[in-house]
Amino acid sequence: MVFENEKIKEILEYYRKIWALNHASGLMGWDMEVYMPKEGVRERSVAQGELSMLLHQLITDDKFVEMVEKAAEQEGLNEYEQGVIRVLKREIKHAKAIPREVIGELSRVTGEATMAWREAREKNDYEKFKPYLDKIIELERKIADYLGYEEHPYDALADLFEEGYTVRDYDRFFGEIEKPLKNLLQKIMENWPKEHPLESREYDKEKLKKVNLEILKLLGYPLESRARMDVSAHPFTIGLGVGDVRITTRYEGFDFKRSLLAVVHEFGHALYELQISPEFSMSPIAHGVSSGIHESQSRFWENIIGRSKEFAENIYPLLKENLDFMAEYSPEDIYIYFNTVKPSLIRVEADEVTYNMHILLRYTLEKLMITGEINTSDLPELWNEKMEEYLGIKPKDYKDGVLQDIHWSLGSIGYFPTYSLGTVLAAQIGYHASRDIPGFQEKIRSGEYGEIREYLRDKVHRYGSMYPPKELLKKSFGEEVEPRYFLEYLEKKYLS
Amino acid sequence: MVFENEKIKEILEYYRKIWALNHASGLMGWDMEVYMPKEGVRERSVAQGELSMLLHQLITDDKFVEMVEKAAEQEGLNEYEQGVIRVLKREIKHAKAIPREVIGELSRVTGEATMAWREAREKNDYEKFKPYLDKIIELERKIADYLGYEEHPYDALADLFEEGYTVRDYDRFFGEIEKPLKNLLQKIMENWPKEHPLESREYDKEKLKKVNLEILKLLGYPLESRARMDVSAHPFTIGLGVGDVRITTRYEGFDFKRSLLAVVHEFGHALYELQISPEFSMSPIAHGVSSGIHESQSRFWENIIGRSKEFAENIYPLLKENLDFMAEYSPEDIYIYFNTVKPSLIRVEADEVTYNMHILLRYTLEKLMITGEINTSDLPELWNEKMEEYLGIKPKDYKDGVLQDIHWSLGSIGYFPTYSLGTVLAAQIGYHASRDIPGFQEKIRSGEYGEIREYLRDKVHRYGSMYPPKELLKKSFGEEVEPRYFLEYLEKKYLS
Repeated sequence: MVFENEKIKEILEYYRKIWALNHASGLMGWDMEVYMPKEGVRERSVAQGELSMLLHQLITDDKFVEMVEKAAEQEGLNEYEQGVIRVLKREIKHAKAIPREVIGELSRVTGEATMAWREAREKNDYEKFKPYLDKIIELERKIADYLGYEEHPYDALADLFEEGYTVRDYDRFFGEIEKPLKNLLQKIMENWPKEHPLESREYDKEKLKKVNLEILKLLGYPLESRARMDVSAHPFTIGLGVGDVRITTRYEGFDFKRSLLAVVHEFGHALYELQISPEFSMSPIAHGVSSGIHESQSRFWENIIGRSKEFAENIYPLLKENLDFMAEYSPEDIYIYFNTVKPSLIRVEADEVTYNMHILLRYTLEKLMITGEINTSDLPELWNEKMEEYLGIKPKDYKDGVLQDIHWSLGSIGYFPTYSLGTVLAAQIGYHASRDIPGFQEKIRSGEYGEIREYLRDKVHRYGSMYPPKELLKKSFGEEVEPRYFLEYLEKKYLS
Repeated sequence: MVFENEKIKEILEYYRKIWALNHASGLMGWDMEVYMPKEGVRERSVAQGELSMLLHQLITDDKFVEMVEKAAEQEGLNEYEQGVIRVLKREIKHAKAIPREVIGELSRVTGEATMAWREAREKNDYEKFKPYLDKIIELERKIADYLGYEEHPYDALADLFEEGYTVRDYDRFFGEIEKPLKNLLQKIMENWPKEHPLESREYDKEKLKKVNLEILKLLGYPLESRARMDVSAHPFTIGLGVGDVRITTRYEGFDFKRSLLAVVHEFGHALYELQISPEFSMSPIAHGVSSGIHESQSRFWENIIGRSKEFAENIYPLLKENLDFMAEYSPEDIYIYFNTVKPSLIRVEADEVTYNMHILLRYTLEKLMITGEINTSDLPELWNEKMEEYLGIKPKDYKDGVLQDIHWSLGSIGYFPTYSLGTVLAAQIGYHASRDIPGFQEKIRSGEYGEIREYLRDKVHRYGSMYPPKELLKKSFGEEVEPRYFLEYLEKKYLS
């Protein structure tokens, strides 16, 4: 039994209502993306709104808050119980700090903003989106004030996605990678392939679906018993419980790596949720701890495993068996196809060398918007300048520039840097894993992923949200995020 | 605007929370039958339990109850508003009458009973199920007492599924059909086909799925925009909102009418939910009013339309195009295949002539169990006696006898008679529709279902739960249920 304290047990019993509403809301979100009939959207949105108000009520309920405060004062809580208290205190703080009207307004504005963003992107018309972005930035500034911060208003927002991470952390982090990445990119561009014919090759969707399912089986994804794979416009993962985790992918009909590597990426997210200690089921610590740590897991499988030579060799027979055009290509071709490097305009299509520059750009602009140093009128121009500065290219229109991501219309200011954190951490974890697991590469080549899964379970997954990100990294790897592993990984991979 | 009274509007605003929880719970139930990974069941059950406790809290909340009582005292409420009050008073009454411990115990016992029933049926071992049935009958008797009744404890339970229907109603109802049905059956058996070679013919599941989807389009089912069709072990329909209604069917791989007619049946349920006035969205009257009226809609489409000669002609080209063996058969063959008549042991496979005898048997036994006139030890023997009496056949084992239905293990005592009510009403509505809609048969033959849909919308669907069943029937057809229409329908169909 991980939870022994009576007061904690009482809290967990109360929390089960909150868990159940989150579970329901999660399923409703999943369904909306994969199976809901189109005209269900209006009623579904109302239902989501009502559930989130009920959740807010339950989390800020005086009796519950008092229970948590009383329990927190006790001595002798074990680490699991301390984790529960830490997570609940954060949830209560966030729910109490921000007035319900502000949450309501943000929810309304982001709802409208998302629709406006879709239209604006389609029509390549930034002005259609700008007034909504203004409103969102204004609300996010308010939220930062309500939450409070020590040095920078962005700190308050960043902490929502990555507990304990601040502008100071991210500035140092990006400071350590910006120049080396630029230099690396220049050198890589001299010799490394920039494109591959498979990028325009069309595929049979049903056949690729079969490949994706076979790869999931190979990786150890418990399809049917504890997991699913479906189709949605944008791939995502949702953990509904220790016995129910779901991923999605998409099938554009050409450039099959987009679909296949999305599956491997989402598998990484899913495995995290699947390997959390089952005793945590339905408790506040039964999810991955943060966006960045989650992304480290998806990027580990996508980049460190999925973009390796050994993985290309491992899945080559599968590809050849199912995709008729594969006979023209070798495992080496697949490796190159999965790893072409070239500055490009769209973040989600970026390779692992240029990817972080896309994030740095967004991080820089978000900070400036939150402090008010720039306003949304300056944004498109600044976007283009920064693209030129970081990657040497400039978008010709808004939809390949400032309008490409959905995040700002969702009000997710502070989220982007966790993508870089995760990408960089993936290489760091890859370093440790390949050192700690004998024959790491060989295991990938022969499709033996069991030990790798167990390693990740042991070092990261099983803890759920027990420890905040920095503490988890220290505990499991003896160090916090260290970008040098990532730089060394790229150098070794692309320049040797 | 259908809702104008300020107090009613306040009530509806509060009710939106209840609606949202029901919406969430409905989706969770749907998902559990169609897509949930197997091991999700434990957490899903807990989530359902927590949601139903939250629902109970919200419905019995003093403030809400007072709001409803105050609003009910007002004069000048329109019929929509009166409908809202009537439905809410029932919900409140049911929630308040039965102590929460009893609901909790019933939920626990039926959970275990369902598992025990599955095992008992598989092993053909009645004793494995008997102790659970004892417990359920005991709890149902208690519930009848808590709810209160005037003449018969069964009245209290029957009313839960069919507002206003009592043993007095059902005794009269079955009294009117029992003998005539027996006589009819004897005559029909002399000349009418008892079986058809298509009953054992295997089919390609993907092809039948295509046929089912084409038939749904033909009938006017708004696939993708407002509706879905999926696969589950037992076909069912769920209305999640006016913009989101879902049906399921199953594919056994042989005897394709089982799958196809299930689709037509569920379409009838779905159309009811889809054609409720959109202004009722998210209100207490936004669902079909009762199990029996709902079943009258599904049976109307399954029996009156789906088992007609004209329907066989209408869908014949579709069948021929998709099922390769169809070239051997004519539309007349399909008609016969859809309508073979023979006493059989299994209710869900029964034809429209023998079906009600299966229900009468269950109704008779339920009443006797609730009053304690028989106990569960007598049940298997009595089952067999009654089968002999009603249909002249006797099951050789429990799984084709007393263990065949899931209903008792779910605690749904009082539900069965609504199946007969619906089946009989379907013929009554068919009589009126064919008299009121010029060229009714011709329209089916040529696949023009628009006017039929509109007729049902006008007479039944649009009202949702505004009127209780008896009042609705009186208002729309000038009479309550009249079994003679059903008997005349059978006589005309099978004996002329």
